[in-house]
Amino acid sequence: MIDLQRSREEIDKIDAKMVELFEQRMKISQNVAEYKINTGKPVLDREREKQKLDSVEKLARTEYNGQAVRELFSQIMSMSRKLQYTMMNYNQASEFHKITEIPKNNETKIVYFGTKGSYSEQAMEEYFGTDITSFGASSFYEVMSKVSNGEADYGVLPIENTTTGGITDIYDLLVEFDNYIVAEQVLKVDQALLSLSGTNLSEIRTVYSHPQGILQSRKFLEQYPNIKTVEFGSTAGCAKKVLEDGDKTQAAIASIRAASTYGLEVLASNINYEEVNSTRFIIITKQRQFCEGSNKMSICFTLPHESGSLYNMLSHIIFNNLNMSKIESRPIPGKKFEYRFFVDFDGCIEEASVINTLRGIEAEALDIKILGNYIGVDL
Amino acid sequence: MIDLQRSREEIDKIDAKMVELFEQRMKISQNVAEYKINTGKPVLDREREKQKLDSVEKLARTEYNGQAVRELFSQIMSMSRKLQYTMMNYNQASEFHKITEIPKNNETKIVYFGTKGSYSEQAMEEYFGTDITSFGASSFYEVMSKVSNGEADYGVLPIENTTTGGITDIYDLLVEFDNYIVAEQVLKVDQALLSLSGTNLSEIRTVYSHPQGILQSRKFLEQYPNIKTVEFGSTAGCAKKVLEDGDKTQAAIASIRAASTYGLEVLASNINYEEVNSTRFIIITKQRQFCEGSNKMSICFTLPHESGSLYNMLSHIIFNNLNMSKIESRPIPGKKFEYRFFVDFDGCIEEASVINTLRGIEAEALDIKILGNYIGVDL
Repeated sequence: MIDLQRSREEIDKIDAKMVELFEQRMKISQNVAEYKINTGKPVLDREREKQKLDSVEKLARTEYNGQAVRELFSQIMSMSRKLQYTMMNYNQASEFHKITEIPKNNETKIVYFGTKGSYSEQAMEEYFGTDITSFGASSFYEVMSKVSNGEADYGVLPIENTTTGGITDIYDLLVEFDNYIVAEQVLKVDQALLSLSGTNLSEIRTVYSHPQGILQSRKFLEQYPNIKTVEFGSTAGCAKKVLEDGDKTQAAIASIRAASTYGLEVLASNINYEEVNSTRFIIITKQRQFCEGSNKMSICFTLPHESGSLYNMLSHIIFNNLNMSKIESRPIPGKKFEYRFFVDFDGCIEEASVINTLRGIEAEALDIKILGNYIGVDL
Repeated sequence: MIDLQRSREEIDKIDAKMVELFEQRMKISQNVAEYKINTGKPVLDREREKQKLDSVEKLARTEYNGQAVRELFSQIMSMSRKLQYTMMNYNQASEFHKITEIPKNNETKIVYFGTKGSYSEQAMEEYFGTDITSFGASSFYEVMSKVSNGEADYGVLPIENTTTGGITDIYDLLVEFDNYIVAEQVLKVDQALLSLSGTNLSEIRTVYSHPQGILQSRKFLEQYPNIKTVEFGSTAGCAKKVLEDGDKTQAAIASIRAASTYGLEVLASNINYEEVNSTRFIIITKQRQFCEGSNKMSICFTLPHESGSLYNMLSHIIFNNLNMSKIESRPIPGKKFEYRFFVDFDGCIEEASVINTLRGIEAEALDIKILGNYIGVDL
């Protein structure tokens, strides 16, 4: 049986010595870094770091400890680099200009996804109010284009749903277009079954909706095995179709709002199977701007596909004490071994911790784009 | 000016001392762990670790070093835990049974997504050949159900596309159903514009396709601003619609294979804008099985939404020298501060490094599910 108390005291003594050695090491490597920066040499010397890791690994007496020591020194060198980055300039953040708030009046032109009665239109009105100039666009791509070519000042697009997906396309478009996220709006989504007035649920043979509407209402639809489901355009577009076709055997899954827009009857409401069914919408603009009080950063960066590279990248976020709320990786078309990562974390682009994080990622990733800095809203 | 050579020698001396102290520390904490395991105490004592981190942080002389020391010791303690986990049992991996190969004969019942001529059917035939019994299902959910209730032995579903998305729904269904991935198949997707025979491109007014087909062919469609695009079912379903409607102003974006299935004419081929447009399909089954030579693991786990928790989880993968090829986070409906992560990494469930990784994640995550172990194919 070991003496727990004595073991802990021994560990405390070792730790005190390790902290002292660590601080000595940081001081020396800091001097080396200053020398490097003054003579224009890069901070990260991968070859030298690899040699160092090989040599410390050999010092350890067991294979497990060798691996552990390797990871430990990889961390230690990464910490030296992070301190060194704080001495360097960083321009990308300063290209973003602070505004008090987004203008919300009838001179503000806004494009939303879908037709009248769509969830995006509803999200737009909840954010901007109704004293605005707005129009719908039939695809995510078209929303992005209209903002990019100046036909609209702002665009409204769905980006995340608690029950299903739909995120990935939008993120790809954010990389393709020079647009930025300036705000987000969360909408509780209640799907309803809509039909021509005077129709009975038993008469319905075909239900039209966007794939998301069908998926979210799956458990409701399972009770009616004789009803055929057809994926078709946006949810509001399906409501419009039911009105225009004038066929009593048709119904649409869409919002209560779409029912009133197109004069349809609500056969069943709240048919989505998750009680909490919310969608997050983003508000995009061509300007690099952020509002006062912004507390959420969205970035994307590209990494070589190798063990540890993402881990090192995330260490910049963790080390600066920033909380990460989302991460996603996508393969890059045509480049088998490179991955693009989309990461959200808490913070404002004015803060030193955020600037240090961005600087560190920029120095070590293949590329980085700031997708936006805005006020985060919980789903 | 500093002496670079001398600075490096000093660092080498410090490093040798640090390695020695680290090994002493590992030895003592190992004894503590053995004692804990023998007396049935948990390996991870969050409260004790927090106290330790607070006390070492105070030993450092600068704020930056305090933060760095905190991270360093968080790592050191994590390494002790990883070694301790290797002493513990792990059952989840042993529930997966090794098979030589998946049976590919006419007694194998397979369900694929979509109708005849769909990309999923094509992926199925490339994997299983044609000497099989197969049928289509109209939704991802239906494919999962048919496998789960035994109507089919295997199911084929798209899970990732190099140009667009579609992944998230499938991953959610993998959590919902007790099905597992046993194989994957990659298909090069060439979208084509299909119409009734004897039609001219100039006559086309409406193009039908799955949202993915429209998105992938966006740049082609931009050349024809008078053509209206309508999202409708699967790509093969759209080809079927064009045939059935018999309307010469309609066309579908679908595969060349769908053209021959429905006797349509190819108006334009290879209209997807990314030259490399591949889709990854998964083959699922109800059995917990993996084929000989499996080298890719898919898992999902749930974490509290707090700084560093994902980073700690990934350290299990990195520390065991496993390469991570995909990561994705999703908010969990109704649980604001918990996130579910989907991670793919290289390895076979029989290997010690994989078992150690799974054991470590299981001990520190809120929950973990092994989604499958199979032979990976590059996109």
